[in-house]
Amino acid sequence: MNLQSTFDIPEICFQFGVKHAVISPGSRNAALTIAFARHPQIECLSVPDERSAAFIALGLSLKTQVPTVIVCTSGSAGLNYAPAVAEAFFNQVPLLILTADRPPELIGKRDGQTIFQKELYGPHVKAYFDFPSLEDDTDQAQELLEKALNTCLTGAKGPVHLNIPFQEPFYPEKDKSYQARKNIRITKAVPPQTQVKPEQIQEMDKYPRVLIIVGQGHKDSELNESLSQLSRERNIPVVADVISNAQEVTDCIQHQDLFLIQRDSRLKPDLVISFGLSVISKNLKLFLREQKDIAHWHITPNEDAADTYDHLSKTLSCTALDFLNAWNKSDLNPSAEQKSFFSDWQKANQQANALLEGIDPMDWNESSLYARLMKELPQNTDVHLANSMAVRYANVMGIKQKDIEIYCNRGTSGIDGSNSTAVGTALASKRNTLLFTGDVAFLYDRNAFWHNRVPDQLRIVVFNNQGGNIFRMIQGPSEQPELKEFFETDQRSTALHLAEEFGFNYRPIASMEELDEHLPQFFSFEGQRSILEIFTEAEDNKKAYKQLFKKMRDLSLSN
Amino acid sequence: MNLQSTFDIPEICFQFGVKHAVISPGSRNAALTIAFARHPQIECLSVPDERSAAFIALGLSLKTQVPTVIVCTSGSAGLNYAPAVAEAFFNQVPLLILTADRPPELIGKRDGQTIFQKELYGPHVKAYFDFPSLEDDTDQAQELLEKALNTCLTGAKGPVHLNIPFQEPFYPEKDKSYQARKNIRITKAVPPQTQVKPEQIQEMDKYPRVLIIVGQGHKDSELNESLSQLSRERNIPVVADVISNAQEVTDCIQHQDLFLIQRDSRLKPDLVISFGLSVISKNLKLFLREQKDIAHWHITPNEDAADTYDHLSKTLSCTALDFLNAWNKSDLNPSAEQKSFFSDWQKANQQANALLEGIDPMDWNESSLYARLMKELPQNTDVHLANSMAVRYANVMGIKQKDIEIYCNRGTSGIDGSNSTAVGTALASKRNTLLFTGDVAFLYDRNAFWHNRVPDQLRIVVFNNQGGNIFRMIQGPSEQPELKEFFETDQRSTALHLAEEFGFNYRPIASMEELDEHLPQFFSFEGQRSILEIFTEAEDNKKAYKQLFKKMRDLSLSN
Repeated sequence: MNLQSTFDIPEICFQFGVKHAVISPGSRNAALTIAFARHPQIECLSVPDERSAAFIALGLSLKTQVPTVIVCTSGSAGLNYAPAVAEAFFNQVPLLILTADRPPELIGKRDGQTIFQKELYGPHVKAYFDFPSLEDDTDQAQELLEKALNTCLTGAKGPVHLNIPFQEPFYPEKDKSYQARKNIRITKAVPPQTQVKPEQIQEMDKYPRVLIIVGQGHKDSELNESLSQLSRERNIPVVADVISNAQEVTDCIQHQDLFLIQRDSRLKPDLVISFGLSVISKNLKLFLREQKDIAHWHITPNEDAADTYDHLSKTLSCTALDFLNAWNKSDLNPSAEQKSFFSDWQKANQQANALLEGIDPMDWNESSLYARLMKELPQNTDVHLANSMAVRYANVMGIKQKDIEIYCNRGTSGIDGSNSTAVGTALASKRNTLLFTGDVAFLYDRNAFWHNRVPDQLRIVVFNNQGGNIFRMIQGPSEQPELKEFFETDQRSTALHLAEEFGFNYRPIASMEELDEHLPQFFSFEGQRSILEIFTEAEDNKKAYKQLFKKMRDLSLSN
Repeated sequence: MNLQSTFDIPEICFQFGVKHAVISPGSRNAALTIAFARHPQIECLSVPDERSAAFIALGLSLKTQVPTVIVCTSGSAGLNYAPAVAEAFFNQVPLLILTADRPPELIGKRDGQTIFQKELYGPHVKAYFDFPSLEDDTDQAQELLEKALNTCLTGAKGPVHLNIPFQEPFYPEKDKSYQARKNIRITKAVPPQTQVKPEQIQEMDKYPRVLIIVGQGHKDSELNESLSQLSRERNIPVVADVISNAQEVTDCIQHQDLFLIQRDSRLKPDLVISFGLSVISKNLKLFLREQKDIAHWHITPNEDAADTYDHLSKTLSCTALDFLNAWNKSDLNPSAEQKSFFSDWQKANQQANALLEGIDPMDWNESSLYARLMKELPQNTDVHLANSMAVRYANVMGIKQKDIEIYCNRGTSGIDGSNSTAVGTALASKRNTLLFTGDVAFLYDRNAFWHNRVPDQLRIVVFNNQGGNIFRMIQGPSEQPELKEFFETDQRSTALHLAEEFGFNYRPIASMEELDEHLPQFFSFEGQRSILEIFTEAEDNKKAYKQLFKKMRDLSLSN
């Protein structure tokens, strides 16, 4: 048996920038496991539940922006990766998936842990590679691995799957100590430089009212500075959903999901310019989809534009930063209408903001609590928002602090991996990390903490309303007799037992006095990892949330 | 909106024999959820974690042998079904998977919970059907559903996936009360009757030494009676792996995994006749693969034969029962060699049995504990064996009691769903249900209990050795410095916190005195659901298990 090619894999990964590998125990992946564990510069983490392992890897990659390697054994292990792989695909997060497999001639013999691993993730990976036996052919293996890593990293980033056959024996002989070869020469693909044509910028002159919408993206201060300049100098309203990480943009719009319930036609743009990924605000999507005669340009270097508003008329093949900088440098003058358009968006946003400021801080429901918590967020923190209500509440309230980075799994918008993703970014960054979640999402991904590396700078706020409250918010299910049993989940667990098992400080909170007493310590990030579990009543939450939107709608009538 | 076709779905399922639906909360699947919840004869269960939901459904179907319906929302929810779907595929368990989806025209717009659901499970389902909009076309929907249910049930049973688009609004209007139409006419497919040709039976005359190997299968007393007759009257050794449910066959061989380590050539057959699915015994597989000139006939009506021993020469297209009955009725006489061949297998089995009987019951390790527990199993019980060590120990020890049914997920042999599968069969059968598992498998599938229907007749024995001991048993990893961190899992959790959260009686056991005190009560199945967690030392387990096989090997030398 010759394991040299296997031991070269981590070194090649390292030369492409890989910093972490998340390994799940198994026998067929033994050689890979040992090879990664022995690489001096790649940090390895052992996580037994592959579903959580892959979401932790996703979190690591969200922070590092390089592929995290995930390694598992053959059989159903790799299927447990699938939810995180799909999230990585739609959220453009680089992952290198290495699944160990039996050699092709041993498949279909009813041996254990043998499934059909070829193209296991279907269209939810950027590429799939059938690996050769690593004992036979060093050159081809390296070539495929480089292709895989280049594919992870160029264009829209994303997951790539390598299925690697191993035959017994799986373990190096006791006396053999393999090392990666030194100075392996690799070939990196560099994406083409994009250019913005001046006539592209000039074409905007045709549109009196221009609106910018920033989709989900990483914190990018240079981009945000360029947006601020456009907002200040050209009166372009910049809509910054909570997951856009654009909250530092001057005068950015944050409460669109609230005030666009008014469907005020004065806010209709002639041209929407968008970049980034998903947008949370449902009223923004509905408002724009209902309007006629809107042009929509989406800026992306990656041919991944989605027709989110049913108006997509052009995709511009360049980076957002290049486009915005060219716009800022151009002599394009905003139209007369643009100024009042900008002012209308500002007024609407301020009106919503005033409404939110008017929420009685003594009320005990999730709306008033999120309003308060979003204002009091500690500085210099990574904030994770779970699907489904946490991210909606935060998006309605807005986050004003500028030194905060926001994370949310909006690729697939699943509730399945939010704990693990938070664990992942915290492990990569060592920054203070704060997760807002609900009882269902929190308990769903409980194996996120079932390993030996749960970070101590993690704080989790669990809003426990004994089920999936989102269904109570919606007109339909709340009128069905099946609401409690089949929609809300009707679950009675709390975070208490999990906190005990996994070494979290735990504090249940059921009143304003308790919150006042414990929040400062909790937000100070002193001491060990902690959970604050806030108990509210589903009916109270529903009433307050509906009331907020009703008040907003009524305001427009009296306007 | 017209939900009539949606409300017809449960009724059509019911007419095909469906008894249970496992529903996970969501909005896009609302109409399906309500339709199933309102069907008077289908029992519905709400389970929030789709991974566990699908394994619970698998358990229900294992018991009922009819499709259990699983219903989930769009997006990553369906990906969490994948491990159980693959298990159902390879273990031939009928499941009807209903995933709600957006209408095709809304996919690719970066809306939430939208992935590529077409053919989501790749080759791990028997069939996939793109459903039409249920509002448009009643006839086509019914036709596809009948095709799906017939596919689940005919030939090798298995999972079938229907992806069903739903548009908003998802909920029936408050004043509309849909019911399934009465007397929907359905068309059931009846499989062809198989026939055994007399010349097929006569052909066995060519082979002096014939061996029967029973693969994984459901308890079938008629089949076992036919096997007993062959064993008694024709001297055919019947190898009954622990998962074969053939332990009631007269003089069946149970300790093959132990004694075949001797590789005694006197035990080499000329013809192997097999039926059923997987076989656990690794030494049986290796022994047969190492021999030359063996003919292997696999009996299956379903064209699903696997070449498990590298000798597959014929697949016989009939049921095992038809074949065995024809053989029993034939005038075929066993050869002279057959009698001594039978006697050699019996002797080897008895030798192994004597070795097992000689295990010191006061030793504290998993081998001695499994030896005891398998002997003391309470009557009339369903026994679940988790992968990976639980099923191996039980297979080495053998289970002698005849009124026990054995379950184990040997389709994919994953550790991922054993708790849930046990919950599933217990819910369907109301029989006393006993799960043997290890700490890693138990904690992996902890969401099996996160719902409101955990059965009280469930007893779980968790062998906790702080990790995946299987890796210590194997020569390779035990010699690597990465053993503890990257192979064994090195986990410190116990079942205590889970037991508290989910209302189990919990008893930790660390000595023979404690076991003697608590086992009778635990095995009596009185009172509520209970967990017995037995703590052992990994090194002790390894030594005892290796010692057992070493002793067996040495016996052959002195023979």
